[in-house]
Amino acid sequence: MATIKDVAMDAGVSVGTVSNVINGGNVSEERKQRVEQSIQKLGYQVNGIARKMRTQRTDYVVVILPDVTNPFYSMLLQGLERALSAYGKQPLLCISDGEKEKEIKYIEMAKANKVDGIIGVTFSDVEEYLDDTLAFVSIERRFQKNVPCVSGDNYRGGRMAAEELTARGATNLLLVQTIMSVDNEVRKRRFGFEDYCEENGISYASITFSEKQVPSVYSSFSARSLIGSVLQAHMNNQMTENGRPNGIFAGTDHLAVVIREELERMGLRVPEDVQLIGYDGLRWMNTGQPFVSSIYQDTGLIAKTSVDCLMRLLNGEVVEDIIDLPIVFQDGGTTLPLPKIGAKDGAFDEEGQAEIKQGDI
Amino acid sequence: MATIKDVAMDAGVSVGTVSNVINGGNVSEERKQRVEQSIQKLGYQVNGIARKMRTQRTDYVVVILPDVTNPFYSMLLQGLERALSAYGKQPLLCISDGEKEKEIKYIEMAKANKVDGIIGVTFSDVEEYLDDTLAFVSIERRFQKNVPCVSGDNYRGGRMAAEELTARGATNLLLVQTIMSVDNEVRKRRFGFEDYCEENGISYASITFSEKQVPSVYSSFSARSLIGSVLQAHMNNQMTENGRPNGIFAGTDHLAVVIREELERMGLRVPEDVQLIGYDGLRWMNTGQPFVSSIYQDTGLIAKTSVDCLMRLLNGEVVEDIIDLPIVFQDGGTTLPLPKIGAKDGAFDEEGQAEIKQGDI
Repeated sequence: MATIKDVAMDAGVSVGTVSNVINGGNVSEERKQRVEQSIQKLGYQVNGIARKMRTQRTDYVVVILPDVTNPFYSMLLQGLERALSAYGKQPLLCISDGEKEKEIKYIEMAKANKVDGIIGVTFSDVEEYLDDTLAFVSIERRFQKNVPCVSGDNYRGGRMAAEELTARGATNLLLVQTIMSVDNEVRKRRFGFEDYCEENGISYASITFSEKQVPSVYSSFSARSLIGSVLQAHMNNQMTENGRPNGIFAGTDHLAVVIREELERMGLRVPEDVQLIGYDGLRWMNTGQPFVSSIYQDTGLIAKTSVDCLMRLLNGEVVEDIIDLPIVFQDGGTTLPLPKIGAKDGAFDEEGQAEIKQGDI
Repeated sequence: MATIKDVAMDAGVSVGTVSNVINGGNVSEERKQRVEQSIQKLGYQVNGIARKMRTQRTDYVVVILPDVTNPFYSMLLQGLERALSAYGKQPLLCISDGEKEKEIKYIEMAKANKVDGIIGVTFSDVEEYLDDTLAFVSIERRFQKNVPCVSGDNYRGGRMAAEELTARGATNLLLVQTIMSVDNEVRKRRFGFEDYCEENGISYASITFSEKQVPSVYSSFSARSLIGSVLQAHMNNQMTENGRPNGIFAGTDHLAVVIREELERMGLRVPEDVQLIGYDGLRWMNTGQPFVSSIYQDTGLIAKTSVDCLMRLLNGEVVEDIIDLPIVFQDGGTTLPLPKIGAKDGAFDEEGQAEIKQGDI
């Protein structure tokens, strides 16, 4: 994508001159023609963001997150602060609690104030409040408008969870996920999981809770009670050919921790009776022990990619979605070691042993 | 403390008139005299902050924190955002990593930009960079200058840790704490602990690591190794009259989690062989299971109190330190139940049982 600098270079003028041409400033007819030719030739997209921002640059970027006590978001925030700070900018933190009114309030605030743009994880239908003068990078959610979305590879992560569970001996899988009312990338964890099971003939069931049934604070009594009773119904199920599930994929680590507690309450051992994989790969203080076996997302990379996308938007570029950032399985003690190929029960290969150790750091 | 509103009320003029008198604006001699009399009579302190802020109010408050992946700080940040948002303001987040250069950079940025003030947890010697035009509220650390400090009651918290350990049967105590090079309120945890032990004739030892020896990321290999080997030396000590410690007070929950892992590595059971109390009262996602038994600090209250102090500074008031915010013991499974009074070993009273259940939520 051509930038304003490329146009200036091609036309042999300063960036300021290109800016003046775009914004209708005072430029000689001859220079104006050269700039316009370069714009056409290079396919430079003059957008509202670049036009607005050239006169209104600040050092602030609004960061909208639903909650920063959730370690996934606090790590993402730390990554965003580091990446923004490297560009001489600081995040103006706005916590939405996932509420639509707050998300709208913060977007309107960003438009009214002199900020460089927004990086946000939004849960509500706020598309109509965005416009082409507002640089907006969306994490884990795609909009129709020209808003780049940055996300880990959720589809591949869902496949990976099913693959890791079955490779470690699970034969009957269960997915438990809570989903937002708006479509987002996170839903693809389920599609990947189900596709993998279908393609490989693996017995599975899926439980999906809407956010109305199970709000993001899973520890509320009613939410826990619902998760517990639905889980118990599945675990007691002896009617199907395969009996009760022996491998569970939870949509987040947070949910996995709740599920582990519920399983232990039912007298089931994790991972001996039921293996469990979460999503996000959270660790105690981001450096210590993982809470559960999980599909790890690199929050630092998601943050840095989002900030880079924002900077490119401010530079007048058209920025595509980046929704395939790498994920990796991380052993956290709630899965069994990989069986040794060709070995009898109870013998593990070195890789499996090493992973158990890694989870025990 | 008198505010500008009190002065206006007493002099029978508007706040704007008082402001004009203070800032040398156009006011009739008669009104000016009335205002000056009221200022003297009420002892109203005209300070640089109020003078500067009247013309430069914004909606931003710089928040300096060393790290937001530490749950104590992420909960504090969430509290600060909520309290600021209630005043129509948002935090401009600055993460310092506890580094002096970054703390100075953010203070200078706050002075240069139009922000309403700073609320910060600072670790370095930055006193000389503060001035009386900058509204600054310091959390957990006192400065010489007119900067209000907000903190939980660390001295009482230290006493409480020693008291809870001994009430639950520990007879030989050990304190492990890391301390910053600058003096701060957190050090009082140790003084409270030691005073309680001295006053009650309890056998104890204290280990203090400087931040240079054990940086805040305890999980780094060298830091863990140091904590582990020093701990092992104490736990193996059979030379003193009382043998090895059977009750440990760790300066933070984070450190307590590291210590628990080291104790388990040595083959010691927590709480059966050694009881353990941390500090902060962190829970999984701020709602679930506590990590360890702990002295709980109310981060929401610390945050709200800090924001209220900042608003009073902006209102021209002189604000005193508030360093006695309440703390409370929270059972997290690393301590034994309280023994039933007059009962034999192994019998617990109802309170003890209830606390065990609370820790098991």
